[in-house]
Amino acid sequence: MAGDTITPETMAARDRSDPLRRFRDAFVVPEGVIYLDGNSLGMLPRACAQRARTVVEQEWGRSLINSWNEHGWIDMPLRIGAAIAPLIGAGGDEVVVCDSTSVNLFKALASATAQRPDRRTIVTNDENFPTDVYIAEGLCRLKGNGYRLRAAPPDRLADVLGDDVAAVAYSHVDYKSARIEPMSEITAQIHACGALAIWDLSHSAGALPVDLNGANADFAVGCGYKYLNGGPGAPAFLFAARRHHDHMANPLSGWLGHAAPFEFGSRYRPAPGIARMITGTPPVVSMALLEAAVGIIADAGMQRLRAKSIDMTSLLVDLIAQECAGADLVLASPPDAAQRGSHVIFAHPDGYAIVQALKARGVIGDFRAPHFVRLGVAPITLSYADLWNGVQQIKAVMQAREWDQDQFRTRAAVT
Amino acid sequence: MAGDTITPETMAARDRSDPLRRFRDAFVVPEGVIYLDGNSLGMLPRACAQRARTVVEQEWGRSLINSWNEHGWIDMPLRIGAAIAPLIGAGGDEVVVCDSTSVNLFKALASATAQRPDRRTIVTNDENFPTDVYIAEGLCRLKGNGYRLRAAPPDRLADVLGDDVAAVAYSHVDYKSARIEPMSEITAQIHACGALAIWDLSHSAGALPVDLNGANADFAVGCGYKYLNGGPGAPAFLFAARRHHDHMANPLSGWLGHAAPFEFGSRYRPAPGIARMITGTPPVVSMALLEAAVGIIADAGMQRLRAKSIDMTSLLVDLIAQECAGADLVLASPPDAAQRGSHVIFAHPDGYAIVQALKARGVIGDFRAPHFVRLGVAPITLSYADLWNGVQQIKAVMQAREWDQDQFRTRAAVT
Repeated sequence: MAGDTITPETMAARDRSDPLRRFRDAFVVPEGVIYLDGNSLGMLPRACAQRARTVVEQEWGRSLINSWNEHGWIDMPLRIGAAIAPLIGAGGDEVVVCDSTSVNLFKALASATAQRPDRRTIVTNDENFPTDVYIAEGLCRLKGNGYRLRAAPPDRLADVLGDDVAAVAYSHVDYKSARIEPMSEITAQIHACGALAIWDLSHSAGALPVDLNGANADFAVGCGYKYLNGGPGAPAFLFAARRHHDHMANPLSGWLGHAAPFEFGSRYRPAPGIARMITGTPPVVSMALLEAAVGIIADAGMQRLRAKSIDMTSLLVDLIAQECAGADLVLASPPDAAQRGSHVIFAHPDGYAIVQALKARGVIGDFRAPHFVRLGVAPITLSYADLWNGVQQIKAVMQAREWDQDQFRTRAAVT
Repeated sequence: MAGDTITPETMAARDRSDPLRRFRDAFVVPEGVIYLDGNSLGMLPRACAQRARTVVEQEWGRSLINSWNEHGWIDMPLRIGAAIAPLIGAGGDEVVVCDSTSVNLFKALASATAQRPDRRTIVTNDENFPTDVYIAEGLCRLKGNGYRLRAAPPDRLADVLGDDVAAVAYSHVDYKSARIEPMSEITAQIHACGALAIWDLSHSAGALPVDLNGANADFAVGCGYKYLNGGPGAPAFLFAARRHHDHMANPLSGWLGHAAPFEFGSRYRPAPGIARMITGTPPVVSMALLEAAVGIIADAGMQRLRAKSIDMTSLLVDLIAQECAGADLVLASPPDAAQRGSHVIFAHPDGYAIVQALKARGVIGDFRAPHFVRLGVAPITLSYADLWNGVQQIKAVMQAREWDQDQFRTRAAVT
């Protein structure tokens, strides 16, 4: 794009030729909202609204407990896992859906460290999404006995790798900068030192093609409510490479990960394969919504989604440069679209207030501490016209310094 | 009742004078079903069907990410916890709703054992609900270092108590027999040896009044989808006595249990109070359903629910004796209603097939290994007429040996 002026006509032409255009109609798009936060909570697929009614009113309401068999509730963790698998380069028997990303990361870290009993160090990144760091801290505290967490960014991993490192946990796409880590290279580096590689795909799954098995990853976790559009707090997924299935242990060894849960035996015996990573009874209604949503992403196809995402984040960066020159919005994501996920962040000293002022205009992005405006493009729901209009609103806010009012500067408890 | 013949008129009179009668109308009651399994999955409250539409279609669909503040999603774990608290004798700041019962039990056990670092034994009961045992096994495996599980039923607890016991975890109401354990006495016994007491209230909460603080309990967990009617796989609750709040640690130290999650700090700092027991993002839709359901139980009142439950389980036992004499259904619950929860089990060598044959007649109970027919009375939804009609169906099945067909004997994967 560099050099060419971007116009509303540029964007209209893009919308006309967008092979994913029809997918926008599969979602509820509220009037007057330009949603640049599908990376925090994906929009509502119409299929999910319908599925919610069915699972609640028909399945729970009418079939009651029989639904576990009649409506396949009992198979949801494995069935939805198998539906997510092709989106992340996994085998259909290597992914399960259950619990939250945090809980699943705990399982993966505990399972990985148990495979390296003579090693006591877990490595992650201080810039990783905080829950990933906190969960690793919690595991080290619980295990005691010399277990410790060391922090190093992926490009400085060599500084901390050594024969005490049991596992390394990184995010594939950084939640702030959107930088993509070279999963294959880093995994190879981790394996070369004898440790296991755990990847958090929360900002990757549904946003760009991921090839876990191509990268030889050991474990992975990820979120159901961002680009997979599974609904608020949707259950998370957990991947374990098939080579680990026979010997991996789930520290949260609950009854639904048992080999025969309905025998009610008095001792734990792990289910074969990935099923042993299930713990308790899954939240069926939230699971059903995620299942309905994943099918849409699969239909759209990860290659087409990635192509549109790259085009859109590039246009967003170029449009901000073109329309908001001098506004002091400093790009803090990789300038090369191939190296970033499906969101873009800009640093600004008044980032928090700017996000609030945009919200007052119906443009929903989010703030990330300490001073970042994060704008996500969910390629399945966002139109090019939205992107143009969103940047016009940003331009208006920046030109008039609209954020510079007390109402926007007062921080809410949550943002 | 003993001695008097129970007739349909007996039951009709009971229905007429039932102070909880109107609550049945708050639920969806499918045609042709007599539901004796509210202890596995409570029926659908009409308010939940409505809440599902609102939280999905309006809140998620229209307000999107802003719902975390606008619709109070972020407060759900503490808010729903506070709503459950009075049902279980807890303070409003001592209960949180999140994750599954299994995951919450792991947190409670880990937190309790961390408070007794010189002790290495966890005690539970082989007859406890299996996931409770499995989770304790998993914690011991993870901690290694001499941690071990010992099993003893509550009435033989003295045999295993000693100065190596860190925590004892029992169910308040046994999932098979429905026997109620004397929570106060056992807790006192546990404390006398210097250990902490953890109670599983899955078959108690919403079925009978519980007084956790009266019993001086340390931690408790329980299920949202049985007598609380929160929907399939509803999130679970976790209680921690206020005296533990300042020093207790959550081993699953996720971001939503952080003191300031939205500062995205690079090290974990626990939230004050019970909030630190939250881990990841809760499944909002399933949470919303539970919240709508809990209000109904609170309105009905635990004392009235218990009175009706006692009357109904007593009538059920007497009716089986009266109508199914000679059918070899042997009561395996305590004969004294004051000592049992809200379900009754009967042993029969063909228990599995009998449950299937009853299901074919629209009478839904469940089978519990190895040979128990479990019949639950959820006092908020069950009418006395249902109870009479259900027993008439049981009588018909038993008299004609209807269960004695291949179609009923073949075990499904799930029951």
